[in-house]
Amino acid sequence: MTAIAQLAAALPPGRVLTDPDVTDGYSRDRTFLPPGRPLGVVLAQSRDEVAETLRWAAAHRVPVVPRGAGTGLAGGATAVEGCVVLSVARMTAIKELSPGDEIAVVEPGVITADLDRAAREHGLMYAPDPSSYEISSIGGNLATNAGGLRCVKYGVTRDSALGLEVVLAGGRVLDTGRRTMKGVTGYDLTGLFVGSEGTLGVITEAVVRLRRAPADPPATVAAEFPGLRAAASAVSAIIAAGCGPSMLELLDRATLQAIDDWKHIGLESSVEAMLIAQADSPDSAAVAERMRRLCEENGASFVAVSADPAEADELVGLRRLAYPAKERLGNCLVEDVCVPRSALPEMISAVEAAAARHDVTICTVAHAGDGNVHPVFVFEHGVPEPPPRVWAAADDVFRAALDLGGTLTGEHGVGLLKRRWLSLEIGPVAEEVQRGIKGVFDPLGIMNPGKAI
Amino acid sequence: MTAIAQLAAALPPGRVLTDPDVTDGYSRDRTFLPPGRPLGVVLAQSRDEVAETLRWAAAHRVPVVPRGAGTGLAGGATAVEGCVVLSVARMTAIKELSPGDEIAVVEPGVITADLDRAAREHGLMYAPDPSSYEISSIGGNLATNAGGLRCVKYGVTRDSALGLEVVLAGGRVLDTGRRTMKGVTGYDLTGLFVGSEGTLGVITEAVVRLRRAPADPPATVAAEFPGLRAAASAVSAIIAAGCGPSMLELLDRATLQAIDDWKHIGLESSVEAMLIAQADSPDSAAVAERMRRLCEENGASFVAVSADPAEADELVGLRRLAYPAKERLGNCLVEDVCVPRSALPEMISAVEAAAARHDVTICTVAHAGDGNVHPVFVFEHGVPEPPPRVWAAADDVFRAALDLGGTLTGEHGVGLLKRRWLSLEIGPVAEEVQRGIKGVFDPLGIMNPGKAI
Repeated sequence: MTAIAQLAAALPPGRVLTDPDVTDGYSRDRTFLPPGRPLGVVLAQSRDEVAETLRWAAAHRVPVVPRGAGTGLAGGATAVEGCVVLSVARMTAIKELSPGDEIAVVEPGVITADLDRAAREHGLMYAPDPSSYEISSIGGNLATNAGGLRCVKYGVTRDSALGLEVVLAGGRVLDTGRRTMKGVTGYDLTGLFVGSEGTLGVITEAVVRLRRAPADPPATVAAEFPGLRAAASAVSAIIAAGCGPSMLELLDRATLQAIDDWKHIGLESSVEAMLIAQADSPDSAAVAERMRRLCEENGASFVAVSADPAEADELVGLRRLAYPAKERLGNCLVEDVCVPRSALPEMISAVEAAAARHDVTICTVAHAGDGNVHPVFVFEHGVPEPPPRVWAAADDVFRAALDLGGTLTGEHGVGLLKRRWLSLEIGPVAEEVQRGIKGVFDPLGIMNPGKAI
Repeated sequence: MTAIAQLAAALPPGRVLTDPDVTDGYSRDRTFLPPGRPLGVVLAQSRDEVAETLRWAAAHRVPVVPRGAGTGLAGGATAVEGCVVLSVARMTAIKELSPGDEIAVVEPGVITADLDRAAREHGLMYAPDPSSYEISSIGGNLATNAGGLRCVKYGVTRDSALGLEVVLAGGRVLDTGRRTMKGVTGYDLTGLFVGSEGTLGVITEAVVRLRRAPADPPATVAAEFPGLRAAASAVSAIIAAGCGPSMLELLDRATLQAIDDWKHIGLESSVEAMLIAQADSPDSAAVAERMRRLCEENGASFVAVSADPAEADELVGLRRLAYPAKERLGNCLVEDVCVPRSALPEMISAVEAAAARHDVTICTVAHAGDGNVHPVFVFEHGVPEPPPRVWAAADDVFRAALDLGGTLTGEHGVGLLKRRWLSLEIGPVAEEVQRGIKGVFDPLGIMNPGKAI
C-alpha cells in the first residue's frame, strides 16, 4: 500500500483526494506561482484528523502544506512537489461566542466575515477584515497575520488572537495563550504562531477577541484628488491631526479606471486618486468634517461626506472590488510594502518612479492610514510568471520601502513570493534565530517547507 | 585576575561594582525573595557595554540577571548565586520621538512616565501605565509585558512594542520588528521577547507605538459599594453595556482601610468596595452617566461623577497608593491572577473564601475591566518568607483562577515566584516547546536562569 493509501485508510472515508484533476484546485493560492504536484489533499474535519495526518507525515517524511481558503497572495499555500495539502476549510464551527467575555472560540475554516456577522448579533464585531474577508478564513488570517481596512483603528489579526490550539509536526497538540484579556505565563507562543505561515504547526482552534461594535453607522468621507501625492499628504495630515479614522483607504487612477471600466462608476477624467475614510467614534460627524477640511486643504477637488449606511457600503464595496477589477486587466503581482506613516508620500512617489522607469502598469491601493501600500504590477494574461521588467520594478519598490524605514510585507506574508528579498530586511542574526525556532517545532523540516523564513 | 576583574578591565571605569554593601541593593526586586550573591553588578551605559558583558559571561559561563528599575513583583530580577547583575537603568535616552509616525525610539532605562510626559508635549501618549510607572522603566515593562490601569482600553506593553534591539547571549545583536504600524516579515520575534523576563537576551533599544492623547480630560466615576461582589457585578455590567472605559479599577475594604489609615481619606464604615472608572472618549460625559447608572443598579451606595482633572488625579492617585499603603501593614505577597471578564464576581468570591479558610489578610485591588485581580497577602513585617497558611491561600486562589478559565499572571510575570504552579497552567507540551525556544537563544543556560519558564 502506498503511503497516501495508508493515510486514506487511517482517516474516515472521503477525507483524502488523489485525483489530479481535483487536487490541482487545492495546489495554488491566488498568486501565479506554479505549484508542485501533491501526493494528495486531506480535507480534515477535526483536530484528531489533523493530528493523524501529521503523525503519518512525520513517519513517511512527507511535506505538509496547510491550507485555509486558499486566498493568500504570497504563495504560502502553494503546493510543493510530493507534499500532502492539508485543508482545514471544512472545520467551520463557531464553537462559542461569549458576549460577556467578548471572545469567540472558532475552528480555522470559519469564513472571517461570517464570524463578524455572528458577533454583530450580540453588538460585537470581529475587527480584522482583510479585503478578502468574505472568502478568506480565520485559519489563514491567523497564519498570515492578516490586516485589513479596519486595522488602522482596531489592529491586525494578531491583536485579536488570545489563544490557539495547534497540532505540531508529529501530531502532538499544543495549547497556547488564554481566554483572558491579559496573560504573561511563559513565552508568547500565540504571537509566534500568528504569522508563521504554516511552518510551525497547524492551527485547529482559536480563541479570538471580539470588540464592541460602534452603536451608530460610521461617517464616510470620499475625496477626489488631482494627484496621488496630494492624497498621500492628506493622509499624513489626517493622522497628524489625531482624527483616529476607522478606515483610511487610498486608490490611484489606474485602480479607479479598472473599477470604472467594469462597474461604470462615472469616474471623471481629472481624478487621479481617491481617499475613502470612515470615522466610527461617537463624534463621527465632527471627525468626518475635520477630515473633509484636511482633504480640501491638501488639494482635494471634490469631497463628499455621508452618514448614510447604504452609501458607505457602496463606497467601501468599491474599495473591496479593487483586486478583482485589476485581475480583469491582466495577471497581477500584488505587492504589500509598509512604511512609517509620514513616509507615505515618498513611497507613493517611489512606486510611480518604478512604473515609469521600467514601463510597467502599476495600480496602487493603500491602507493609507497604516502606511501599507499595495502596488499591483499588471502583466499580460496568459503569461505564467511576471516578466523581468515587472520583477525589476518590484525590486525598486521593495528597496525604496526598506530605505524609507519600512518592511517588505505589511499583511500578506513572505510565502514563496518574497523569500529572495527577506535577508535584505532582517539580516543574518535574525535569519539564524528564525531557523533555530523552526527547528524546535519542525526538526524534520516538513511543515510548509520553503515558505516564510 | 578574577573573571569579574577581567570584565571591569574590559569596560570603562566605574561600570562594575563589587562591594557587597553596594551590590546588595541591586540583588532584589520588590518581592521578599532572598537573592543569591552576585559576583558583581554592571551599570551598562550602551549597547556595546551590554554586548561586552554578555561575551564575557558566555566565555566564563557566568549567569546574567538583567535588571531595569528593580520594581518587579515576581522575582524576575532577583540575583542568583554567582551571577552578574546587568543593569540598564543608566541607559535613559529617548533617542527619537516622531509625532508624524506616532512612534518613539527609547533606551531601556527610560522611566515609563517620563516617556508618557514627553509624548504628551506632542499631543500623544505612551499608553501602558503599570501602577509603578513613575518608578519602573520601559526595559522592565517590556521584559514582563507589563499591564496597567489604561490597558483595559489601550492594551498591554506588547501592544505598544513595534521593534527591539536585543543583545543575545554571547554578545551578538539582533534587531526585531519594525518602525511601521504593520509588518509580517518572519516570525514575531518582538512579541517573543516581550514578556520573556530576560531569559532570551537583553533589550537595549525599543521602537514603541505612541497613541493620540484624548483632547479633553477624562470623566471620572467613583462608586462606593456595600459589598465586593456587588462592585464586581457592576464591572460586568459596564463591560457588557459597551461603555469602553479607559480605566476600571476596583479596591476592596482592606485596601481602602490601609489607604485611609495612612492618608485619612474619610472612609465611611459601610463602604466595602470602591470602583474608580474613567471614560476618555469624545462622549465621555454621557458614558460616565451610563456607568453611574449601572453602578447604582448594581447596588452602589454612593456615586460621584466628575470632569475636573484635579479630582480625577486625586482619585487615580489614591489607586496608585494601594501597594505602598499595604506595605505599611506588613510584608506582602502580591498576586496577579486574571480571569475571563464574566468570571470576576466568582474570582472575587474565591479570594474571600481563601482568606477566610486560611485566616489570612488579603487586600484586593483589580484592573477589573480586564478581569485582572491582585490579591495581596499580608503577613508580619520581619518575616522573610510567607508562612505556610499564606502559600496555602495563594494556592487556592491560583487553582480557582485556572478553574475559571483564567491564568496565573495577568501582567507581573512568572519570575521565581510562580514557577512551581506553571505546569498547572501550560502543560507538558508547552513546557517542552518553551525550553526548546530558550535553548535556541541561550544554549549555555546562563540568561536569567531559573526564571519565567
